[in-house]
Amino acid sequence: MEFVKNTWYFAAWSEEVGEGDLFARTFCGKPIVLLRDANGDTVAMLDRCPHRFAPLSMGKYADGIVKCCYHGLEFGLDGKCVRNPHPSGKIPRNAAVPVFATHERHSAIWIWMGDAAQADPALIPDYSKIDEYGVTRFDHFVMDAPYDLIVDNLLDCSHTSFVHDGILGNEPMVAAPTEIAQTGATLNVVRYARDVPPPSMFDMIFRQDGQNVDCWTDFRWDPPCCLLLDVGVCPPGAEKSEGTGYYGIHILTPETDETTHYFTAACRWNINPATENDEMRLKIADLRRFAFEDQDEPLIKAQHRIRQMSDPDDLRPVMLETDAGVVRWRRIIDQMLDRERETTDESTETKNVA
Amino acid sequence: MEFVKNTWYFAAWSEEVGEGDLFARTFCGKPIVLLRDANGDTVAMLDRCPHRFAPLSMGKYADGIVKCCYHGLEFGLDGKCVRNPHPSGKIPRNAAVPVFATHERHSAIWIWMGDAAQADPALIPDYSKIDEYGVTRFDHFVMDAPYDLIVDNLLDCSHTSFVHDGILGNEPMVAAPTEIAQTGATLNVVRYARDVPPPSMFDMIFRQDGQNVDCWTDFRWDPPCCLLLDVGVCPPGAEKSEGTGYYGIHILTPETDETTHYFTAACRWNINPATENDEMRLKIADLRRFAFEDQDEPLIKAQHRIRQMSDPDDLRPVMLETDAGVVRWRRIIDQMLDRERETTDESTETKNVA
Amino acid sequence: MEFVKNTWYFAAWSEEVGEGDLFARTFCGKPIVLLRDANGDTVAMLDRCPHRFAPLSMGKYADGIVKCCYHGLEFGLDGKCVRNPHPSGKIPRNAAVPVFATHERHSAIWIWMGDAAQADPALIPDYSKIDEYGVTRFDHFVMDAPYDLIVDNLLDCSHTSFVHDGILGNEPMVAAPTEIAQTGATLNVVRYARDVPPPSMFDMIFRQDGQNVDCWTDFRWDPPCCLLLDVGVCPPGAEKSEGTGYYGIHILTPETDETTHYFTAACRWNINPATENDEMRLKIADLRRFAFEDQDEPLIKAQHRIRQMSDPDDLRPVMLETDAGVVRWRRIIDQMLDRERETTDESTETKNVA
Ligand code: FES
Ligand code: FES
Ligand code: FES
Repeated sequence: MEFVKNTWYFAAWSEEVGEGDLFARTFCGKPIVLLRDANGDTVAMLDRCPHRFAPLSMGKYADGIVKCCYHGLEFGLDGKCVRNPHPSGKIPRNAAVPVFATHERHSAIWIWMGDAAQADPALIPDYSKIDEYGVTRFDHFVMDAPYDLIVDNLLDCSHTSFVHDGILGNEPMVAAPTEIAQTGATLNVVRYARDVPPPSMFDMIFRQDGQNVDCWTDFRWDPPCCLLLDVGVCPPGAEKSEGTGYYGIHILTPETDETTHYFTAACRWNINPATENDEMRLKIADLRRFAFEDQDEPLIKAQHRIRQMSDPDDLRPVMLETDAGVVRWRRIIDQMLDRERETTDESTETKNVA
Repeated sequence: MEFVKNTWYFAAWSEEVGEGDLFARTFCGKPIVLLRDANGDTVAMLDRCPHRFAPLSMGKYADGIVKCCYHGLEFGLDGKCVRNPHPSGKIPRNAAVPVFATHERHSAIWIWMGDAAQADPALIPDYSKIDEYGVTRFDHFVMDAPYDLIVDNLLDCSHTSFVHDGILGNEPMVAAPTEIAQTGATLNVVRYARDVPPPSMFDMIFRQDGQNVDCWTDFRWDPPCCLLLDVGVCPPGAEKSEGTGYYGIHILTPETDETTHYFTAACRWNINPATENDEMRLKIADLRRFAFEDQDEPLIKAQHRIRQMSDPDDLRPVMLETDAGVVRWRRIIDQMLDRERETTDESTETKNVA
Repeated sequence: MEFVKNTWYFAAWSEEVGEGDLFARTFCGKPIVLLRDANGDTVAMLDRCPHRFAPLSMGKYADGIVKCCYHGLEFGLDGKCVRNPHPSGKIPRNAAVPVFATHERHSAIWIWMGDAAQADPALIPDYSKIDEYGVTRFDHFVMDAPYDLIVDNLLDCSHTSFVHDGILGNEPMVAAPTEIAQTGATLNVVRYARDVPPPSMFDMIFRQDGQNVDCWTDFRWDPPCCLLLDVGVCPPGAEKSEGTGYYGIHILTPETDETTHYFTAACRWNINPATENDEMRLKIADLRRFAFEDQDEPLIKAQHRIRQMSDPDDLRPVMLETDAGVVRWRRIIDQMLDRERETTDESTETKNVA
């Protein structure tokens, strides 16, 4: 699978990478080590010593120096070798580790897998909801499926009525039309279901009485695979602000062609203090994780397996109206990939001429 | 591996697929779901929703309708989409699941993996012994080996003297010549060992006295991988009818290139009521399964592994007289595959002309 | 991966192959069965029956005859079929198992994977230290890594200061220069660290007082992957003979492209009888095995994984002075492989002309 390089990927929750840690994680098939400098700022290096390719994350890190566990080369945080402990002490030309741009924002570490010069923090999708509202729990797990099938899953919210029936959706909600809007490369897939029975998650955080509600879902997608869900319920016909809900963080980062990091959390608003304590907060987190790991993942893995068993020529999907988001995000990514390919070709040509 | 398509494969024992079940099983690398209509007749569909390729077997089935678990499309038993639950309700052209011909006979469900128009039930190999005689137990297991090595195993009955020595064969039986007969595409590999010590299985079901017997084995093979064994013992020089034996059902269906469904049962005749009760019946079933799973399978897996480690050019087998059946069945299958390839090419040509 | 064929590989410790055994092991991707003839001499055959490719090691061996478990063909120790138990009794032309040259020396069985006519025992690397000195324990384990990364590991002894820090090396030892000598195809990678703190292994077998020592390591490599380590300590400035040490046997044999047999033992000299009893001997063996299995192996596996994740074009290693041995052994092996390829091409040409 080809991944867009010049874009921000979610690398880790800030809390995952402590002071002094060498934190190893794979993104887009590349082994990366994350660490913090003396100011606590994050640094990302290729997790591969330029000498004999031992992972740097198996080495030691102190005082701004990463020391390879195998033959002791030492590297500064710009990736350059600063010490060769062997008798000559000579530092070989090209003894440097590729470094990737990172930026910390919204309780998260973001990494730019392409050309660091283009890594503009202004391009990080807006997750300020994380900063503004209480977060249930910063969750991370790896889903054994390619990332594109997970984006497909999320951007077709009708699946909640079937896969998460009773918990996050139900059949009456299917009747509501889905609308899609595109602003630049950002998509919004929106549905407003009116006067429907409340799925248990939303009854639990709202009135706990099983009475009908209006329920909206607004799934925002930013390239390459950063999603933000605005979901909530209110009394039928009322304003949203009379109800409650959460901003669901659903950020994916490809780990390999076949596996995907899933970062998730829920940012609650209009909390009812009478019913919503710490225990409830964890219950929400657990229920969401159950829905993703125990309901979505087995299905997406099965879908992946079925696709792998199929002749690719047989895999022309029948299209439904709810696929609008799926079609659109795939088109945007394809365009980005095309553009990256062209740029690479051009720079290669230039090189050849020179 | 290439599999013959226009032929009947054994899909399941009838008892495996209950009313209301969505029974998933893979044949020839294709995921299939089996189910029963209101009359109890069997239906087989590709286990792949035409929308986004979720397995239909993870969905729901009631009142003749299969509902996909992912976004709720509903399909009739002819595979055609009959309901789109989304707002427009429009049923997309081509929203249909491929359906495969099935036929139930001899306590078994048979499936035709090719063109349903050619699926003539008269072509199902005759296993009426299942209907005529008591069956020990309907067994199914998956062998981790390609199906052709298992057919080879069965069609060279001399292996019983070595692999199942003492249980199903013994060395004195090797001296008996093997004969082979072909009728249409049906092979019979026959051996009649006279006045030999009885293998324990046959002593157990016959006289339980260890006295010599005549022992015959007649292995019938029908394409693609349906075998029927007529095996029994009688007093030396006597008629078969003075002895006892069973019809061994050995029907293989490729699951994938590397794994094979093994359906087996024994149909007993001339049972001695003094010694043969229910317990004995299960003992026979267990002993047979032990022979196939604990004696044949490790050997066939090892043989497969050794072949995979070898340069294909080094795999020209030395031929023995007992290979007559092995050579013959492989030739018949190759001819069938050639014929299917030609037909496909012709129809492609026709298409191109048109 | 391509392996040199016309060379001696270490197959097994002599004690591993008992009288009457059919001992199966894979070398260079080929399944081999080892056994002993009536004189106790070793024989190696391809572990593959020429009939239907069952492993001979699953069969029976007695009186100089190997009997295949599948259909009972019998083979003499020259690999030729000597009995066909089936009615005709005819022995098919070409019913023979390839036989490989073996030689037993230094408590070990050596195998020549190429043309047996070239298998001169004089070419077996000299491990007479095994015969001359007491051996801690004959060890064998399989490392899940390609053999070349393990040779690289061993021939750069500077790694002991980092990977086995405190046990087999320490940072002060890094300062000592590494020298390399080549005699024919034999390399010696030598380092003499003077007046350094003793790593715990050497303190344990020497003075047990933590006082500084001189510590030398002399790693001899013979093609394809046979290493002998002369390592020891003595009082600073003294003669080697005033100290103690061991000859470390490190002999690798590729099992497959991805896995490697590791045969190891230590031959102690100048043993201090006051402190070195049987228990200590096992302690040395255990400590060495810990170093190889628990310190080297995870690192080498990680290095292998990182390489597999990388674009091969990105794998041009930065060179250090300690890489002299690594560069040299790889060059020698490449030359040997080139020579084998040429010879094969020539003989093919000759055949084509004839
Ligand atoms: S692999 Fe890092 S210093 Fe050698
Ligand atoms: S995958 Fe079946 S309805 Fe969408
Ligand atoms: S495979 Fe060895 S005798 Fe048949």
